[in-house]
Formats: sequence, C-alpha cells, structure tokens
Amino acid sequence: MATIPTLHDIYLARPHVYRHLRPTPLYHYAGLSNLIQASVYLKHENHQPVGAFKVRGGLNLVANLSDNQKRAGLYTASTGNHGQSIAFAARAHNLKATIAVPEGANPGKVSAMQGLGAEVVFHGSDFDSARLWLNKVAEENGGTFVGPTDDLLIHGVGTYGLEILEDLPDVDTIIVPVGAGSGVCGTAVVAKAINPRIQVIGVQSAQAPVMQMSWQQGRPVEGKMKTVAEGLATRIPFANTQAIMAKYLDDFILVEDHALEEAVRLLLTHTHNLVEEAGAAPLAAALKLGDQLIDKKVVLVVSGGNISPERLHHILQT
Amino acid sequence: MATIPTLHDIYLARPHVYRHLRPTPLYHYAGLSNLIQASVYLKHENHQPVGAFKVRGGLNLVANLSDNQKRAGLYTASTGNHGQSIAFAARAHNLKATIAVPEGANPGKVSAMQGLGAEVVFHGSDFDSARLWLNKVAEENGGTFVGPTDDLLIHGVGTYGLEILEDLPDVDTIIVPVGAGSGVCGTAVVAKAINPRIQVIGVQSAQAPVMQMSWQQGRPVEGKMKTVAEGLATRIPFANTQAIMAKYLDDFILVEDHALEEAVRLLLTHTHNLVEEAGAAPLAAALKLGDQLIDKKVVLVVSGGNISPERLHHILQT
Repeated sequence: MATIPTLHDIYLARPHVYRHLRPTPLYHYAGLSNLIQASVYLKHENHQPVGAFKVRGGLNLVANLSDNQKRAGLYTASTGNHGQSIAFAARAHNLKATIAVPEGANPGKVSAMQGLGAEVVFHGSDFDSARLWLNKVAEENGGTFVGPTDDLLIHGVGTYGLEILEDLPDVDTIIVPVGAGSGVCGTAVVAKAINPRIQVIGVQSAQAPVMQMSWQQGRPVEGKMKTVAEGLATRIPFANTQAIMAKYLDDFILVEDHALEEAVRLLLTHTHNLVEEAGAAPLAAALKLGDQLIDKKVVLVVSGGNISPERLHHILQT
Repeated sequence: MATIPTLHDIYLARPHVYRHLRPTPLYHYAGLSNLIQASVYLKHENHQPVGAFKVRGGLNLVANLSDNQKRAGLYTASTGNHGQSIAFAARAHNLKATIAVPEGANPGKVSAMQGLGAEVVFHGSDFDSARLWLNKVAEENGGTFVGPTDDLLIHGVGTYGLEILEDLPDVDTIIVPVGAGSGVCGTAVVAKAINPRIQVIGVQSAQAPVMQMSWQQGRPVEGKMKTVAEGLATRIPFANTQAIMAKYLDDFILVEDHALEEAVRLLLTHTHNLVEEAGAAPLAAALKLGDQLIDKKVVLVVSGGNISPERLHHILQT
C-alpha cells in the first residue's frame, strides 16, 4: 500500500533542501505568453547545480539517513539526472555513492558522476541487470539502494512546487513532465493542499506512454519505450507515484517526440535557455492544449537542461 | 573627472536590486576544473530574467530617479542586453521606457523589448544616429537618457561581485568580460575593497580591442570592432570605466573570436548552460592563461546567455 505524501512532508524536506540549494527562479516570458495566449511562467529547474530538479530529492533522502546508513553509503543505478542527483547529495554530506551503469554507458555522463565524487561501476549489458546486481551488492554491504520514486525523493522535489505557490499564489495551471513521476507527485501534493482548484497536468511522450496509460486505465500497463527524451523514458510504471497521480492529477496528456524537439527550439528562441527534451514537454503540452489555457496563469516546469551538444545540433538542424 | 565607486555604493544598490531579483548561483564544475587545472566556479548571470547581468544596474538606476524623472520616463539606445535591462527595470517600476534602434534592427530583439513593455522607435541607419537623435528627444521631454556605463548602473551590477565574495570568500581570481566595462568595474570595486589580493582580470575579443588597448596605453584609443560577440563590441572606450580599470584591474587579456566559440561549446558540454559569446570569454581567457591559474580558486563570470539559435547552430557545426 503506497503512502500518499502530505504538505507537511514537503515542509519537513524544506530545510534539508535549502541547506544546500537556493530557490530557482520563476520567470514570466512575453514571447511564450503570446504563443499560448496565456500568462506563461517557466519554473527554472534547469538552473539547478546538476541541471535538474532531482537534486532536491537526493538532498532530502540523504539528510534522513541514520548514521549507520550514512556510513554504509548510497547505491543506485542511472546515467541520467537521478544518478547525478544522488552523487551531488552524497558529496554534500560527505558520504560515498556507488552508481551502477551498463557496460558502454555514455562516457560524458559517467565522467559527470565521477566528477561529483561518485564511484561508477560497470555491470551487465543493460540497466535492469546493472540495477539488480547493485541492489544485491547494497544489501550485502548494508547500504541504501535508492530507487527513482522513493518517498523521501518525492518530498524533496515537492519543494519546487512550494516555491511556485510562494512566487505565484494565484497560478491556475501547472504542467509537469512525467518520467517516474516524483516531480508531478510532489507538485500535485503541494498544489492541491494549498488550492484544490489549481489544475495539475502531467505530460509524457507518445513514444513512451506507460505512465499515462496506467493512470488512464487505473492499472499498471507496460508498453513501448522509444522516446528521445531520456527524462521521460519509463518502461515499467511505478506503483507509488501512480497512486498519488490517481488521487491528484487533473489530466495527463501525450505529445509526440517531434513536438518535444520543436519545444526545445522555441525555448531557445524565446528564453535563451538550454532545455532537455523532457523539460520542454510542458511547453509542447501547452501548445497542444490550445484554447483550454486562454488567459490563464500557467506554469511550465522546466525539469532539466541536460541535453548533449549532439542532440542540440540535431534539433537545430531540423 | 570620473567618480570611482566605493563598496558603500554597491551596498546602497543592494536593496534596490533584491527588491526584484534573487542572487544568482555560483556553481563549481568538476569538468571545467580538470580542464583549467584549477577549482573553477561559474557566476551564472545567464540565469537572470532577461538573460544577462545588466538588469541589476537598470533596477538600481530606476530606483534612484526623482518622481519628476520617473514621470518623464527612460530613454536609451540598444538592441542588446542593455536595452532589455532598461525595459525590465522600467516595467518593474511602472514607468515608460523608450528605446531607439536603427531601421532594420533585429526583429527578435525588438520584440523582446516590446514584450517587456518598452516603446521601440526606429531612427537612422546606425546606432550612433539613433542614439544622438533619441538623446535630443529625451532632453526635450525632460526624460533621462541612460548610457551603458552610468555610475548607478556600475553600482547595481557590482552586487554580483558581492555575491561572489559572499559565496566564495577565499576566491583567488575573478575573470570578467569587458564590453563597456560596467561589470568588471563593479566587480573590481567590491573585490579590492574586501581583499586586495584577489586578482581581477578583464577579457575582450582581439577583434574588438579598444577597451584593452586604452587600458594598456593609459589613454583613449579607437580601433577596429569586428567581433561576433555583441556583448564585447565596443568601438569607442568609455572614460569613467577606464578610470576605474586603471586603478583596480590586475590584467586585461585578449582572446580570438574562434576561442570564444570554442568556449561556448565547452560550456555547453561541461555545464549544459547556454552562454553567449561574451559570457564565454572568461573561459577562453582562463584557457589562455594556462599555468598561471593552477590550483587557484577561479570564478568565471558568465555575463549572459542571449545567443541566437542561428549563432548557436553555426557554433555547433564548426
């Protein structure tokens, strides 16, 4: 039975997050507002130290470990924003992070995690085998294995939801990208507790729709996972975030990968921000929603900016 | 006779700046540190609402206007970061900004300033004629014409220097891009007042070296202005910033335009930040300085991120 976080959980996370991070900006953009015919704000989680919102969750999780757990260190499997977040949080608290990746993992991302002080270990041919193996290693060593939707991560990332409400208390709609779901769940918990009329909308790629399909059908569904957006690439739905989304999410829409790429270009042109495909998904969703947003105050959560120069070059070329 | 600002001037600007802005992050990057063989931090002025440090100066200037001056509004000439900064500050204080640009000015930048509520007027075939004309209009209307290095602008932008010292009090070297010189002057005033041993280094493009040549020769020098870096494109040196630089600057180096483009690529790869050519100049300078920075704590001021998709595409292609 999954626990549904409360606003109080987010408040408990706050001091742990702000011990190491400052609030990120929420900026209004005239160009995007014209485009959507709404008053459009971006929540700039791409301005975080490792370029994505997840670092808030890592910091909260580490702060809540017992001394024994701290000594035994953290274990996780990821080459993406989750891995960097755990590495950052471990370094901030002077503890050891071990991160499993499959053989041949992206060298740039591996060196980013190593640069943050994490030990990166290569195992197996894909993420599932790396993860299963490291989970066992963690158990043997009494260490903590961190999955992408652990409750304390959701509480930590919910602090950006609070910041949105603090800066723009009369927000009408918040659109959040959904990968494993920690971001949208943290946001929804905060928004619905403070003002249940705030619309919280999730967005995923039509090329990786299992979280959306599971939410829509009310049961776990597996499906294809072919999106270019690493931050949205979920193959198996997560039960705890699905339970929170079932309770709080107003809508959950799918956008095509090519619309994500167009949104990356639009964000570059109108805001001069570098945004990864997942972080651009809320803008793609807002464009798809069309008339539904007219004259509303809309916050698009730019979840991260970690796009490679190669992907960016490709997107600018098309 | 130019006035040399003091640390007290920057403190007087502080509340006016923080009424509308939050401090920007100072982040450490392992990848850049390896590259420079130093401990490298970026001061992220590219995270400002209009994408550049100048907005701090505009806010301080507007806050210091008399009621009569406020009623008469602000006048300036710019399509770049200065123009957007004045437009932003004017909007924040509910006053009118009139910005002159030459006929045929970049439509993207014009609409950005209009989006911030400024009135953009087209006049003449180049910036000098637009500026001279608008200066006269401002006088006739009792309005305030804002040049790029007005004292109150320097005091305002100096607040990012203070933030650097607050976050990293044991910084050894700060490298700052120089266009008209307000940024490097604000930074130097703060750094030298708090710890005279901090090295403050300016950087300009070798394709637009008049500020550097004037500093080196101790007298105003005019010269070529062919750089691709809009933020460094100064054709005629400014007397007041030259006087401050003469007093405080430890070094002032030139980098080639192609090194600026390489620095934009490196910042993209290592930090996933979109940085304009001027904002990348400190990294190009650090790479050129080589051994001189070994093991030092070095802050590179990323002055802005306003690069066009076209320029970015060009840079990624080469």
